[in-house]
Amino acid sequence: VTKISRSEFVDLLDCAHDLADRSGQVILPHFRKALQVDNKAEAGKFDPVTIADRAAERVILKALKVSYPEHAIEGEEFGTQMGQPGKKGSTDIASPFRWVIDPIDGTRSFIMGLPTWGTLIGLMDGDIPVFGLMDQPYTQERFWSTDKASFFRGPDGREKRLKTRSCASLAEATLSTTHPDLFAGGAEAKGFQKLRAKAKTTRYGGDCYAYCLLAAGHIDIIIEAGLKAYDVAALIPIVERAGGAMTSWTGTSCAHGGRVLACGDRNLHAALLLELGSK
Amino acid sequence: VTKISRSEFVDLLDCAHDLADRSGQVILPHFRKALQVDNKAEAGKFDPVTIADRAAERVILKALKVSYPEHAIEGEEFGTQMGQPGKKGSTDIASPFRWVIDPIDGTRSFIMGLPTWGTLIGLMDGDIPVFGLMDQPYTQERFWSTDKASFFRGPDGREKRLKTRSCASLAEATLSTTHPDLFAGGAEAKGFQKLRAKAKTTRYGGDCYAYCLLAAGHIDIIIEAGLKAYDVAALIPIVERAGGAMTSWTGTSCAHGGRVLACGDRNLHAALLLELGSK
Repeated sequence: VTKISRSEFVDLLDCAHDLADRSGQVILPHFRKALQVDNKAEAGKFDPVTIADRAAERVILKALKVSYPEHAIEGEEFGTQMGQPGKKGSTDIASPFRWVIDPIDGTRSFIMGLPTWGTLIGLMDGDIPVFGLMDQPYTQERFWSTDKASFFRGPDGREKRLKTRSCASLAEATLSTTHPDLFAGGAEAKGFQKLRAKAKTTRYGGDCYAYCLLAAGHIDIIIEAGLKAYDVAALIPIVERAGGAMTSWTGTSCAHGGRVLACGDRNLHAALLLELGSK
Repeated sequence: VTKISRSEFVDLLDCAHDLADRSGQVILPHFRKALQVDNKAEAGKFDPVTIADRAAERVILKALKVSYPEHAIEGEEFGTQMGQPGKKGSTDIASPFRWVIDPIDGTRSFIMGLPTWGTLIGLMDGDIPVFGLMDQPYTQERFWSTDKASFFRGPDGREKRLKTRSCASLAEATLSTTHPDLFAGGAEAKGFQKLRAKAKTTRYGGDCYAYCLLAAGHIDIIIEAGLKAYDVAALIPIVERAGGAMTSWTGTSCAHGGRVLACGDRNLHAALLLELGSK
């Protein structure tokens, strides 16, 4: 892990909050307005891309290139942009820092007018999350992590420390997943059904918002598949620094997406990994 | 339909807004707090009853018994209470008016911390909806109907008239349903799958909030089953007076719950009824 000073860390986190302020201002006028939804998928699969999504990523990219031109940026719409080596430091080696951005996670919620989408801003040091932030500008809610803890700020402006709740067993757990179609069939669908069948209750439709509610101690388990790096990078530190665990279905890092298992109770998370791994 | 004067109508609607103000104040302190969730279902089926739900219904009942002791009241937690005949009028015949109340529609969302639940307050004249109101106190959103139109008020306090959007075909439609397990299997599951397979996109998890977003022109279709009168009574006038249609799967009144089909476009609604009725 790259050594940075306390004040550098504070500057980086301030920058993330500033990016969220900017993106919220750009996105909000488009929420619940008649939207021109492009279809970027070739094979007719539904994959909405909104004007707001692109406009927000543009604003974020622009701000980052001013503040941290040496950092890499990875976003849903614009792919990965490498940082400019040596611009700010004394070294000519590119910075290890990479901003991972999804301006609107939960586009399906967004186009249906539901407030359960969010702007994801994560900072990675290689494969290690430095911190993450999720912003919901309509409800004026923001969830983020520092290097040690996770926090929430609501419309009243007060900050609250987030803490996951304990959950002794799957039978007592509330489980959330964005959509049953997320699972590609075969082993994936089987894994999901295994947990779903034993959980106390299941709810669909949550996207990034559900991970933040897990960090806040309201949801016990999230199981998903087919995710991208920009779907999870910002959320891993929010979940883990609130006391939870968030990994792949085999317990490895899920920083690159794929199959994700998040649990507010670390012991239960370990038990669920065994459950998923069993025949 | 019972004749009432304009000022009587205004008083009744004011009363509904007042009930929503009161219930919101009672419910909100319990939202996202550690909840004691009773399980009222006998057979282990998940059916959360929160302290907030009961407290809100108590507050609403109390206020209604003061303002309209002659009206009947039907609620989720307390069953149906008949009005006191002749208390206010000159007749000894019981009033035809019945308040249909669900303090927290979307208890699953509520206990998971999602803001997509709401307080439903409907006034029925026999089987005919007089008006309906849905209140979401956390996001400070309120949707309601008069006798002729539907309205929305958000946190900025401004009122906006609601209008459903047109949708030419199922292939262009966004479809919402609360949970795939809502459908009992057989004909019900088949009916749902028929529409789901042809819709452009499907989203789960919405409860009353989704009906209001349909009224606001953000969702095209909602299909559900196994609903109770208190799940729908307040929503029918909000959907219909915004320009949509909301009936049973055979086109009859859904005021008593059961299988419900709501559509923002009345022509598409008629086409979907044929689709559901076909072999």
